[in-house]
Amino acid sequence: MTKLVLLRHGESIWNKENLFTGWYDVDLSEQGKVEAKRAGELLKAEGFTFDVAYTSVLKRAIRTAWLALDELDLLWIPVDRSWRLNERHYGALQGLNKAQTAAKYGDEQVLVWRRSYDVPPPPLDESDPRYPGADPRYAALSKDELPKTECLKDTVARFLPYWEQTIAPAVKAGKKVLIAAHGNSLRALVKYLDGISDDDIVGLNIPTGVPLVYELDSNLKPIKHYYLGDPEEAARKAAAVAAQAKGQ
Amino acid sequence: MTKLVLLRHGESIWNKENLFTGWYDVDLSEQGKVEAKRAGELLKAEGFTFDVAYTSVLKRAIRTAWLALDELDLLWIPVDRSWRLNERHYGALQGLNKAQTAAKYGDEQVLVWRRSYDVPPPPLDESDPRYPGADPRYAALSKDELPKTECLKDTVARFLPYWEQTIAPAVKAGKKVLIAAHGNSLRALVKYLDGISDDDIVGLNIPTGVPLVYELDSNLKPIKHYYLGDPEEAARKAAAVAAQAKGQ
Repeated sequence: MTKLVLLRHGESIWNKENLFTGWYDVDLSEQGKVEAKRAGELLKAEGFTFDVAYTSVLKRAIRTAWLALDELDLLWIPVDRSWRLNERHYGALQGLNKAQTAAKYGDEQVLVWRRSYDVPPPPLDESDPRYPGADPRYAALSKDELPKTECLKDTVARFLPYWEQTIAPAVKAGKKVLIAAHGNSLRALVKYLDGISDDDIVGLNIPTGVPLVYELDSNLKPIKHYYLGDPEEAARKAAAVAAQAKGQ
Repeated sequence: MTKLVLLRHGESIWNKENLFTGWYDVDLSEQGKVEAKRAGELLKAEGFTFDVAYTSVLKRAIRTAWLALDELDLLWIPVDRSWRLNERHYGALQGLNKAQTAAKYGDEQVLVWRRSYDVPPPPLDESDPRYPGADPRYAALSKDELPKTECLKDTVARFLPYWEQTIAPAVKAGKKVLIAAHGNSLRALVKYLDGISDDDIVGLNIPTGVPLVYELDSNLKPIKHYYLGDPEEAARKAAAVAAQAKGQ
């Protein structure tokens, strides 16, 4: 039996400002930093340790990993950053105010973009400064890999090769793994591990800053999973995520 | 022409307490954190950016890299941690008070251990809790690689394979490289790059927290090197390091 720990980053500055974030590299808020530190304290109190950590190339997840590992006195372990663990790309909605977007397109349309499995928001144009092809951190990506927008199905598709080629082999080799990432890249993993349907995954809400522990058998099939700490707090945070009517 | 930036970590908690540190994983002091942040600000002001960073497995260097990269908004670049960039191992002196050590062995003997090129301090016993074989971060090292003590010559010998096999190929491939490390692992690099003699290297003092820029030709031969920021401050800090009569 192997344990794998998933950690969703906490509040970002844009959460507060009610903007669609996606691949925009916004930082954690002070509250988000407290959540990450608290996650590290919980992991430490429960006796967890790690051999390697995986995170995205977005600082809200990287800083979450750092703050948790700092609490665990594990700043020395390798931390692998990959765009494949990034949040879902939110296309032409990135940086827009959620209320204004709903006023422009209608609540129903925005809900479809936010909560359907396979309907992406409107795409970015390649000339848009928000297009990731203009960012040096994505310089090694092919044009086919660079998203102009993503639905959750797209996020699952670009996350899975990283799981299969990088993370899963480490877990199988007996390494204790921490993944610090985003609501939708973690949904992609949970969907894969637990075989959740396309319809059901969009209703699954992972709370922020609460370590989610998966116990896996030798074939990486889940035996069980649970949140660390107070179960009521995890449930309350998941409900808050669901109720916020926020994009990720 | 390629630029390579070396950064020595700033003050640690043990600097203040006058203890021999070596591989002991002591953290930066508040002053050390300020130095690292200031180094990042200097690099940013001078227009530096980086594709990859290399550091040791000791948190005073890892945190220095993190704080500098945070100022540069480069938390997303790969950061490779290696024991080969660690400070010189200080053997059985690690954790001892410098004044007490001088009283016990004599000033002259301590000066030999601190400032000779090839005379190591007394070795640790393998049963000593300070022996690195007991630390999970060194679990992948062979018994031959695990030091019980080191003179600067030993530090040079274990640093060079990492330079030759990992860092130099990245520089040659055109990557902009930051190395955040320690007084003696950086001395090892400077000795190699500039062809400094065994006698002269022990008198060379690298100031803490001041970015040291090497301009290299296509064969990685130094064209010139210089410190960023106020040259008088760099000279003052180097003199302070030399005058402190402190081990590393």
